[in-house]
Amino acid sequence: MTATRTIEIHEAVLDKNRAIAEQNRALLATSNALAINLMSSPGSGKTSLLERTLTELSEAISIGVIVGDLATDNDGRRLGGRNAQVIQITTGDICHLDASMVGTALASFDPVPNLVFIENVGNMVCPAAFDLGERVRVALLSVTEGEDKPLKYPTLFRTADAVIVTKLDIAEVCEFDAEAARANIVATAPNAVTFWLSVRTGAGMEAWYQWLRDHVGERTAHGDAI
Amino acid sequence: MTATRTIEIHEAVLDKNRAIAEQNRALLATSNALAINLMSSPGSGKTSLLERTLTELSEAISIGVIVGDLATDNDGRRLGGRNAQVIQITTGDICHLDASMVGTALASFDPVPNLVFIENVGNMVCPAAFDLGERVRVALLSVTEGEDKPLKYPTLFRTADAVIVTKLDIAEVCEFDAEAARANIVATAPNAVTFWLSVRTGAGMEAWYQWLRDHVGERTAHGDAI
Repeated sequence: MTATRTIEIHEAVLDKNRAIAEQNRALLATSNALAINLMSSPGSGKTSLLERTLTELSEAISIGVIVGDLATDNDGRRLGGRNAQVIQITTGDICHLDASMVGTALASFDPVPNLVFIENVGNMVCPAAFDLGERVRVALLSVTEGEDKPLKYPTLFRTADAVIVTKLDIAEVCEFDAEAARANIVATAPNAVTFWLSVRTGAGMEAWYQWLRDHVGERTAHGDAI
Repeated sequence: MTATRTIEIHEAVLDKNRAIAEQNRALLATSNALAINLMSSPGSGKTSLLERTLTELSEAISIGVIVGDLATDNDGRRLGGRNAQVIQITTGDICHLDASMVGTALASFDPVPNLVFIENVGNMVCPAAFDLGERVRVALLSVTEGEDKPLKYPTLFRTADAVIVTKLDIAEVCEFDAEAARANIVATAPNAVTFWLSVRTGAGMEAWYQWLRDHVGERTAHGDAI
């Protein structure tokens, strides 16, 4: 069966990836850097969230962004001019970032920033299987996508340390059922912190900023705290 | 490099998939059935489009739906009770439908319907690489996802016979730039038919229904016309 064969091959690729991810993790620890892997469906607002986050935090914290896309450097360009080091990776036909790609990007930072965002390829499935050496995994869920996505893409949400519900300003027009979404998030990711926000209006953004400040501060103060 | 290795493995899997896809295509041709592979990001509205399409067309045309999800049979259940044969495939951690899965589903239709919708796993990347034996590929793009998605996910759009822009009723609140989207669709998928519609209000749906009627009619009249 093709399905089974795909899984077997996948395991070999994942084992190799895991070894490189450990090297990335060691480099990040040595550099006292916190890496955050942002994953979601295409168009959930990863780049918009980062635009506003860089504008808010990049004066106080040294920030780098590694951006993955199949094609175009649109996102990398959108994030430029905000006092952060931005590295765009185009993956061709590869549906996720892997640890090797991220390792190459980390090596080209000078110096390695204290906070490294990794904006993964827009895809709720494959990126979740690849450890990049990050300390924190964040899953974004836009109100436009429907309340059942945590149940339908369980690996992404089960491994997330934080879930961000985005585009809250258009929740009503999308007939988004916040209570159903909350129940599905809790069922799939019971230990994740959840942020409910709108990048456009700024509602809910302060809690996200403070969470980042706390985590970077902890890390700077205590080393490998997270 | 992990990246290169992934591509090499991928080719072997794709070769095997292609052979099974040809078997599916032969079975569909023998059964005088038109298969349509629907692909998009999670939450773009594939299931909603099918709900309304089944309600409209399933009295006049015999319809089957093969629904792919990583987990849950939510979509299969949503599509039930509409006079169509519905088969739910749950793929586990596999990010796309492959020809083998679809072959198994086709074999369980009784009889094979004249119109077979294949609702792929919500993912703009991997499903596009897998031929399922379909005659027609349709890419959905929701107005919530941003105008640049055809440029960022070129394989999906380049291989699409039709592009459906969905959720047109909330285009304004999403600040969707229709002209930019149109230009990006034309640049990536110059030969695709494009539908602009809202499943919720019904706007634009009649053109989609008529396109389906014409294609199923052609097929019934002329055999392998499409």
